Amino acid sequence: MTYCVGMTLNKGLIFMSDTRTNAGLDDIASVKKMHTWQVEGDRVITILTAGNLATTQAVISLLEERSVIPGDRDPSILKAPTLFQVARLVGDTLREVIHENERSGQEATSTFDATLIMGGQIDGMTPRLFMIYPEGNFIEASTDNPFFQIGETKYGKPILLRAYEPDMSFEAAMKLLLVSFDSTITANLSVDLPLDFQVYEKDSYKFRSDGRIDAKDPYFMQVSDNWGQALKTAFLKLPDYNLD
Amino acid sequence: MTYCVGMTLNKGLIFMSDTRTNAGLDDIASVKKMHTWQVEGDRVITILTAGNLATTQAVISLLEERSVIPGDRDPSILKAPTLFQVARLVGDTLREVIHENERSGQEATSTFDATLIMGGQIDGMTPRLFMIYPEGNFIEASTDNPFFQIGETKYGKPILLRAYEPDMSFEAAMKLLLVSFDSTITANLSVDLPLDFQVYEKDSYKFRSDGRIDAKDPYFMQVSDNWGQALKTAFLKLPDYNLD
Repeated sequence: MTYCVGMTLNKGLIFMSDTRTNAGLDDIASVKKMHTWQVEGDRVITILTAGNLATTQAVISLLEERSVIPGDRDPSILKAPTLFQVARLVGDTLREVIHENERSGQEATSTFDATLIMGGQIDGMTPRLFMIYPEGNFIEASTDNPFFQIGETKYGKPILLRAYEPDMSFEAAMKLLLVSFDSTITANLSVDLPLDFQVYEKDSYKFRSDGRIDAKDPYFMQVSDNWGQALKTAFLKLPDYNLD
Repeated sequence: MTYCVGMTLNKGLIFMSDTRTNAGLDDIASVKKMHTWQVEGDRVITILTAGNLATTQAVISLLEERSVIPGDRDPSILKAPTLFQVARLVGDTLREVIHENERSGQEATSTFDATLIMGGQIDGMTPRLFMIYPEGNFIEASTDNPFFQIGETKYGKPILLRAYEPDMSFEAAMKLLLVSFDSTITANLSVDLPLDFQVYEKDSYKFRSDGRIDAKDPYFMQVSDNWGQALKTAFLKLPDYNLD
């Protein structure tokens, strides 16, 4: 499994992804699920991946190759004029990879499925965020739907729904994502640290900061401990039910 | 979908279930998923059901019939000497119903699947709680694993993990269950009020209290509002991440 979140803020975009991949419970490894492209002053693009690892790695490799040696039939995400066009290129590539695997004989399609979050900004346009489905089609974030989750989304969703504010700072958004990831990691063995993050400030056309948070990160340890305690305190403060 | 929880406490047992059932998004109804049997002074049994409604209703009807007209081959859950034997009877009945539906032609077995929580106490023995699988086998709650959830379990699990205490009062346990159900209802359309609950006090051999909580219940409205606010306050109190 996997857990990734891409989020729009008034100040820009923020992304976080876990790194655990597994084939069964006894075959686990760490792998980066966040992939970024930056042409300073022109565009930034971030892709988060969930699903079959062979599929997502093939998609990223094809996008990389085509951005290095662009051709007429395989345009590059670094040349596409809008993020909508980038989303179409990524969606087409994803569908193509899944379709090729299916043709090789296996019947079940779900095995090769993958879902992506793609966001960024191209010079002169607004930042945009998309969720791209295995079928190659996609939806875009909006004020009603300001963030996307992929992978193991349920445990970490309640706090996102309750504490997200579009005008929150990047520092508060990092905290929100870390609480959401902590809830997920606590409940599901197949999501784990380290976590990769990426912060993009609107109209800057270069990444503001990125990094990796591991199990020894003092801030993460503090948030994890304090959040459990804070939940419990909040719970105890609510009045008990009256049974009689 | 469905959400049901059965929980062991030092003081006894507590159960809660939602009532929404749906066949597609445009065909919803309310149905009771909590079924109880009481022979005062001898035994109490509560069963919570999740899964195919035709399957769970057939299981409950068969158990009911056999408790009214017991036969040699179909013993009654009201006569079984231990709760372990009751769990076997319920599990056998569940497997039998699923198997009959499968034989009628349909290949996919998952369509007819159901999972049950069964708990109670028989005179002279300790209270026990079981989770019964579609295959008819079952597991029992223990101090390491003091509660069972069935149906849409993920949204409501983090708070159960964090705030459950074996020595909590029934009133606090009701609050805990309502917070857990509120998180689930907020996130998933296929789980909804009203909620049925059942409280059993150890060694009493009769139900202490039961009831139904609907959307107009003032306590539920208060918990739902206050919990959202309390989560947000707890979140704001945590220090922000330092990006620089």
